[in-house]
Amino acid sequence: MNPDIQRERKNASFDVEKLTHILDGGPEKTRRRREIELLVINDPDFQHEDLNFLSRSERYDRAVKKSAQMIQKLREYNIADPEEIYCYKSCVHCGRPEPLDLHLGMFLPTLLNQATPEQMDRFFMPAWNLEIIGTYAQTEIGHGTHLRGLETTATYDPATQEFVLNSPTISSIKWWPGGLGKTSNHAIVLAQLHSQGRCHGLHAFIVPIRSMSTHEPLPGITVGDIGPKFGFDEVDNGYLKLKNVRIPRENMLMKYAKVEPDGSYVKPPSAKLTYGTMVFIRSMIVGQSARTLAKACIIAIRYSTVRHQSEIRPGEPEPQILDYQTQQYKLFPLLATAYAFHFVGQYMNNTYHRITGDISQGDFSELPELHALSAGLKAFTTWTASSGIEACRMSCGGHGYSRSSALPDIYVTFTPTCTYEGENTVMMLQTARYLLKSYRQVQAGQRLNGIVSYLNDAEQQRVQARPVSARPTVVNINDLASLVEVYKLRAAKLVELAAKSIQQELQRRKSQEDAWNNSAIDLVRASDAHCHYVVVKLFLAKLGEIGDTAVHSVLSTLALLYALHGIAQNSGDFLQAALLTVPQVLQATVRLKELLSQLRPNAVALVDAFDYRDQMLNSSLGRYDGNVYEHMFDWARSSPLNCTEVHESYHKYLKPLQSKL
Amino acid sequence: MNPDIQRERKNASFDVEKLTHILDGGPEKTRRRREIELLVINDPDFQHEDLNFLSRSERYDRAVKKSAQMIQKLREYNIADPEEIYCYKSCVHCGRPEPLDLHLGMFLPTLLNQATPEQMDRFFMPAWNLEIIGTYAQTEIGHGTHLRGLETTATYDPATQEFVLNSPTISSIKWWPGGLGKTSNHAIVLAQLHSQGRCHGLHAFIVPIRSMSTHEPLPGITVGDIGPKFGFDEVDNGYLKLKNVRIPRENMLMKYAKVEPDGSYVKPPSAKLTYGTMVFIRSMIVGQSARTLAKACIIAIRYSTVRHQSEIRPGEPEPQILDYQTQQYKLFPLLATAYAFHFVGQYMNNTYHRITGDISQGDFSELPELHALSAGLKAFTTWTASSGIEACRMSCGGHGYSRSSALPDIYVTFTPTCTYEGENTVMMLQTARYLLKSYRQVQAGQRLNGIVSYLNDAEQQRVQARPVSARPTVVNINDLASLVEVYKLRAAKLVELAAKSIQQELQRRKSQEDAWNNSAIDLVRASDAHCHYVVVKLFLAKLGEIGDTAVHSVLSTLALLYALHGIAQNSGDFLQAALLTVPQVLQATVRLKELLSQLRPNAVALVDAFDYRDQMLNSSLGRYDGNVYEHMFDWARSSPLNCTEVHESYHKYLKPLQSKL
Repeated sequence: MNPDIQRERKNASFDVEKLTHILDGGPEKTRRRREIELLVINDPDFQHEDLNFLSRSERYDRAVKKSAQMIQKLREYNIADPEEIYCYKSCVHCGRPEPLDLHLGMFLPTLLNQATPEQMDRFFMPAWNLEIIGTYAQTEIGHGTHLRGLETTATYDPATQEFVLNSPTISSIKWWPGGLGKTSNHAIVLAQLHSQGRCHGLHAFIVPIRSMSTHEPLPGITVGDIGPKFGFDEVDNGYLKLKNVRIPRENMLMKYAKVEPDGSYVKPPSAKLTYGTMVFIRSMIVGQSARTLAKACIIAIRYSTVRHQSEIRPGEPEPQILDYQTQQYKLFPLLATAYAFHFVGQYMNNTYHRITGDISQGDFSELPELHALSAGLKAFTTWTASSGIEACRMSCGGHGYSRSSALPDIYVTFTPTCTYEGENTVMMLQTARYLLKSYRQVQAGQRLNGIVSYLNDAEQQRVQARPVSARPTVVNINDLASLVEVYKLRAAKLVELAAKSIQQELQRRKSQEDAWNNSAIDLVRASDAHCHYVVVKLFLAKLGEIGDTAVHSVLSTLALLYALHGIAQNSGDFLQAALLTVPQVLQATVRLKELLSQLRPNAVALVDAFDYRDQMLNSSLGRYDGNVYEHMFDWARSSPLNCTEVHESYHKYLKPLQSKL
Repeated sequence: MNPDIQRERKNASFDVEKLTHILDGGPEKTRRRREIELLVINDPDFQHEDLNFLSRSERYDRAVKKSAQMIQKLREYNIADPEEIYCYKSCVHCGRPEPLDLHLGMFLPTLLNQATPEQMDRFFMPAWNLEIIGTYAQTEIGHGTHLRGLETTATYDPATQEFVLNSPTISSIKWWPGGLGKTSNHAIVLAQLHSQGRCHGLHAFIVPIRSMSTHEPLPGITVGDIGPKFGFDEVDNGYLKLKNVRIPRENMLMKYAKVEPDGSYVKPPSAKLTYGTMVFIRSMIVGQSARTLAKACIIAIRYSTVRHQSEIRPGEPEPQILDYQTQQYKLFPLLATAYAFHFVGQYMNNTYHRITGDISQGDFSELPELHALSAGLKAFTTWTASSGIEACRMSCGGHGYSRSSALPDIYVTFTPTCTYEGENTVMMLQTARYLLKSYRQVQAGQRLNGIVSYLNDAEQQRVQARPVSARPTVVNINDLASLVEVYKLRAAKLVELAAKSIQQELQRRKSQEDAWNNSAIDLVRASDAHCHYVVVKLFLAKLGEIGDTAVHSVLSTLALLYALHGIAQNSGDFLQAALLTVPQVLQATVRLKELLSQLRPNAVALVDAFDYRDQMLNSSLGRYDGNVYEHMFDWARSSPLNCTEVHESYHKYLKPLQSKL
């Protein structure tokens, strides 16, 4: 154990294990998580070479191998709880996506939700036993978020009682679905349904794409891998081009909508039935943002305690780089953010499960709010975590660029969350739509409930029309509850600003749609402020649940840091809305610096509490024992370019050149 | 040609070619640049496979091949002007670093600067003819920016008149030098010189590391590649461990410092002799920030005109995504930034060359200012460009993650500039040191010249001690000159704030060094504001040089956008310092939106003016003809995972599993 990091741990003011329990949701959950992790870590089948040294084809190969073993072992161990499956799977693949993700996460669930009993018989058990391996083919090369724009067609032929599927244009080629390129032999294809000369919009069809015996593509199918990406080396994201591919009528998923043998179309009873899954996945991503940012913080903070560099006082030994205020300022707000997002993730997960209960009893009332919240928070947390990972990486100096640090890999694995499951800007605008609708309801005299109820008060404030220079209500910079109020008023103000912008556009005779587009910057800003408020509010709420004094104390410091850092970063908003005075903003930045010093002795303990094993971090810089350089040197020596002392390019190009010049 | 992008070009209000000349520095420079580019593009030796499809070892191999050919051809074509060499080289390697970079950019120049005539005879011509291939080994695994911390030792042995070199610890292993791992047979090693029982600090030694005949490592040398990184696949960044490696006394670079045969040490006459090169390289990086951000903007903006998505008005065709205000807000400020940085790069380059003239005449007076400016601007521009590239990438939705977009590669190739040649935070603090020194000079009654002369006025302002709420001097939001003034006052205010923070720390009896460290956040903020001011100021200055009315008009819009965007992003600073009122900040954001619409018709023409050929961009999304999807599909089909229809992992893992479950 490196003595520097050992000393850090001795200096902690709280019991790390207690904080870990809070993060996991209780001691029993911690115990079970560790048990599952050990199943993987002690399993010789999952001991593997360093993925950084493999080609993409090799990485895909190893991932298929591990996924196949994982399926077997999950059944062997009888692990069936979704959370536990998720834990086991994350451990097997070290948090990376894998070729069977869409089979497990989209193909099987879609069958469960949308297949008829006959289709369940035909498809579900073969898919459960991996005879059928499926994916979910929705996006096309020219069409992403806007589903109505999809061009793939499924035209019903009553003569043969078949659907004929086609990709009529280049832009209609299915593109991106995970597992489509090489792994799957079936795909649920989203296509525009045409029957009896009419288009009935998007529906889902089960399309066999590869032979069940040879795995070769079937006639009319052009399928393959979309090529190398920024990360995601393990996944065969694929393309699929359909040319007059015929499938039986019974391969349309017909639990809700139907096409009768004669081609007549029967509408689904409701269009909102997949709504919940989307909300669930986005809520999950919030938690994933927290965990991923936590990983980056662990690596950067541990390394910053063993790395010595430069000098603060001349002649003295080089200090730990975590002693530099600039380094603390880079990392501690991100650490606070990781904690904040973790608690938001817990809230979203709990709320989703609570509401699911209500929904099953026919009460949909809370779904719109959660939908709006999950969209905005998905965007807010993934953007923050994505740039935060890079900030952590850069705080490690040169070694952050080495793949042995794991930071490059963490970034490329995580950053796609900003785009998939709803592009972030589109997500922010969805939340804004909800906020504006709520704002108009207040203007129309309604009173709001739930998380947007602050718009009720905002309306009152607006009516009073206080001058800009008026002194704001007394804000206590040291009191989190007081800061939550300030964040709330900021959100209200920015929602109002966006509403006014739309109003002004309308007054200039712009259409409703153009007015919206011409106010989009303000709308995104309003959503951002709303999400920020929710995060601060939920952090405060979490503090109320914590009994242990020492843990409560350190988390309170983190929460205050999070809130004050947000104020420093967005001081213009708070000043503009006259929510804070100039002296208060100055005071906030001074207090911020004090909080950095205050957190310094607990930094390593706070990252230790996330309880990521070395085997899962896989980072030479983030090692628990702090023995960074020894490990980096060993890693480098075993890398592929060092398998020979002299690279062949020397003999091929350099040696011959020397005689020529 | 895609009709959308064709229409864009017709809508431009200015002559693209004229703007290209301005960017190049004149029509003759444009002509010559294109001539050199065509030498590479039409050269069959440089036609190559897509690098995205190759393993790292293959990429290194191709890079060595191209570098070797490049050296031959540069001599053939008689290209000797450094700028022209840089242009040819960038074109051969598409802007990527390559294995001979340090041989050409550090080894040869260091010999020229620090070798004795005898050493020049022995080393320079062999190095010129690539018999000796050298690198520059400075950083160690445990030591980066802080050179005094380096641990490698060179101990003089008068008995044999040799130096004995050692890496005494793991943390002293040389780490990161480009070309060290596999390519070089010599290294200039920076080591602590010990002689006659005393340490004389860091000196440079020429150390043979591999056999000139077999290229095998020499006795006592452990050398190799440091393993895969975030990008830089073409470069063999290396490690070097020295164990009692003996070199003749004459291998110490002795133009200035010397060790006599008996071991007595002769000091160098001045320590400032490598100062200029460092300033030059940092100035070059500013221009590189501009060019790289420009590339990312070309790709994102062209793609945004051919990509259609969602709907603004229901029922109408999907609009070009560049018609969304949010997309314009993501991309146009970055486009303006690319232009701004380009002009700053030109200024830095001109100033460097002007000052070099003065220096050769013994006038060092302007060097400290340029040194401070190059440090800060290197940090300011690389940080902005680095995050800007990622913003461009994410604005392309899913396809920005495909390596066919080139954006992932552009990012990983560029982001190391934030760390190398001086870690950015350290750079910002260097600039701050200059600013604080200047501030204190004003306080001591001196009057400053040059770019920091605004601190003279600031002092006057401070003396007047105006109340915070006082109305600021009349600012015209539409007048760039007026905004430059505001940026200037912001910088002055933040320098003052940093100085006050140090003052307060000192009053609390902190040491000078701790006071500095405890004010580091404020110091970085002051440097940032200083650099921001310089950029806006230089953009305004550039406008004054432009004669063509149409070009002047569009660049003025860009400049105003750049300045107002900076105000919107940092509105807290301007409000806090009472430089702008709340209504003015609101007005700025409204004006910003108008400028976005105003720039919209010229967006494609503005990126076309950067004049990057498709062969150099190598991006399916950024193609000049806009035929994005056809190209992506072709690219994907030819990628390695598609060389067989059925991947071997199917037979190895999936097929056997099906029978087991």
